Amino acid sequence: MTNPDLVVVGSLGLDTITASGERRENLLGGSVSYACAAASFYSRPGMVAVAGRDIPDEYIKIFDDFGFDRQGLRLEDGKTFHWEGRYHDDMNQRDTICTELNVFADFQPELPVAYREVDHLFLANIDPELQLHVIDQVKNPKFVVADTMDLWIDLKRERLIEVIGRVDMLTLNESEARHLTGESSLPKTAQIMLAMGPKYILIKKGEHGCMLFSRDKTALLPAYPIEDVIDPTGAGDSFAGGLMGYITRQSRSDWATICEALLHGTVIASFTVEAFSLDALHQIKDGDIEARLADYKKMLL
Amino acid sequence: MTNPDLVVVGSLGLDTITASGERRENLLGGSVSYACAAASFYSRPGMVAVAGRDIPDEYIKIFDDFGFDRQGLRLEDGKTFHWEGRYHDDMNQRDTICTELNVFADFQPELPVAYREVDHLFLANIDPELQLHVIDQVKNPKFVVADTMDLWIDLKRERLIEVIGRVDMLTLNESEARHLTGESSLPKTAQIMLAMGPKYILIKKGEHGCMLFSRDKTALLPAYPIEDVIDPTGAGDSFAGGLMGYITRQSRSDWATICEALLHGTVIASFTVEAFSLDALHQIKDGDIEARLADYKKMLL
Repeated sequence: MTNPDLVVVGSLGLDTITASGERRENLLGGSVSYACAAASFYSRPGMVAVAGRDIPDEYIKIFDDFGFDRQGLRLEDGKTFHWEGRYHDDMNQRDTICTELNVFADFQPELPVAYREVDHLFLANIDPELQLHVIDQVKNPKFVVADTMDLWIDLKRERLIEVIGRVDMLTLNESEARHLTGESSLPKTAQIMLAMGPKYILIKKGEHGCMLFSRDKTALLPAYPIEDVIDPTGAGDSFAGGLMGYITRQSRSDWATICEALLHGTVIASFTVEAFSLDALHQIKDGDIEARLADYKKMLL
Repeated sequence: MTNPDLVVVGSLGLDTITASGERRENLLGGSVSYACAAASFYSRPGMVAVAGRDIPDEYIKIFDDFGFDRQGLRLEDGKTFHWEGRYHDDMNQRDTICTELNVFADFQPELPVAYREVDHLFLANIDPELQLHVIDQVKNPKFVVADTMDLWIDLKRERLIEVIGRVDMLTLNESEARHLTGESSLPKTAQIMLAMGPKYILIKKGEHGCMLFSRDKTALLPAYPIEDVIDPTGAGDSFAGGLMGYITRQSRSDWATICEALLHGTVIASFTVEAFSLDALHQIKDGDIEARLADYKKMLL
């Protein structure tokens, strides 16, 4: 097998999820799983993550089916990170029932030697200290994207701003953009964040799509409308993973390439939410992505 | 002056609004004012509405500045409809402080003879009984659009469904679409509503744009991103008014024309929210709409 052309760092978890009237236990989840699965349709992602020895063999087999490089996956004594959540009927809100960090509590992402030469890096939502530690290990990356969340804006603001200064694109959701900048207008939040260093700011709005900003350009993208959302978990990570996979395959990061990558990320994420866990991504067949992409492009004016 | 080529029926009000840290009293408002003002950039709208004799002369002058036909505006003894609302800091929520129907309580929209031959009709959000009464008076309209709201879905469901069966396009917001159909998936709500009769369903999502559905096509449109929203009142009515004005001017209602009309409606609404009342629409100069439309189209993928 060839070495990965994209490295993804994030959480690997066993999720218990209640959605669409069903409760499913210990599903394969975590940002690194969704992002790598999404990216695998375009590139060869290498995962940097930690799991406990309780992770089922069948889940490792799923990683292999997608063709992830697993050199960066550490198996440790103890239990895998566990999250339990319950979605409301309208799917736009969820309650966290419990979070057990387990082996993830002491996660120190160390990159295998083969990963240190990689051109493309996606730092999913983890502690900015760890994101910095990963950036430090990659010699000369061409395109680095970081995701974050409210927790780090509150607890590790300074370190997060350091991360933002070292990436090419920051992605976060609209409430996080407002929280980080103290500004309510999204175009203004983007300009404030661009001034921190990145070339691009990608604001995610869930079922309402996303907005991409550079210093002098804006792109607006509605989400693909799904008839039956079964489980929204992982939509954002799949979106980012599909985006990064496409950018990696093209080996370009100009405005037009990023815009096309957003379309691919949107389509991949639209599959994710049609089933629990990675199930829908796992069942994608030749032509499915292209067909939905064509359908989606027809809906855009 | 020529007779109107578009008739708009709706409320005319004096609004007291608190938004963006300011409280402004007795502003010119109401769905008919916003929709006609928006439409006036493309067509000659005739307003069907009622006001009390307390309506300031300067507001009548504003109607004349926009070039509305006022044959359908009745002035009655008593006070004009009054609404008072207060927006939350994030502008996506508002509280109604009071609603005084006044002369609007007994509104019976009677169309002047000149209006009965009109090809284009916009029924803003009023009692479906009144909407039906207006449809009955127009001899052979080519394109009729109706808006509605939760109140009528609850109180006048049967009459509302009768309205829906007699219009070419129904427009409503996403929560209303779900409420009317009992379905949470927006594409499914659209198919249910299309089965009631209209050719098009337009679901408004406020700052998140809109979705247009026909039986076999979907269009997704993000809203134009505004840096400083001052007062969101009237955005939906301006959107519909701009849309109807454009359709009237083109005298076509095929899919491509409707899609282009959505872009115009979006741009007109983006001006509305940049000031209180009709102020921003009133100050639009030659070239402003075209410039923003070009800017907006560049943001769409």
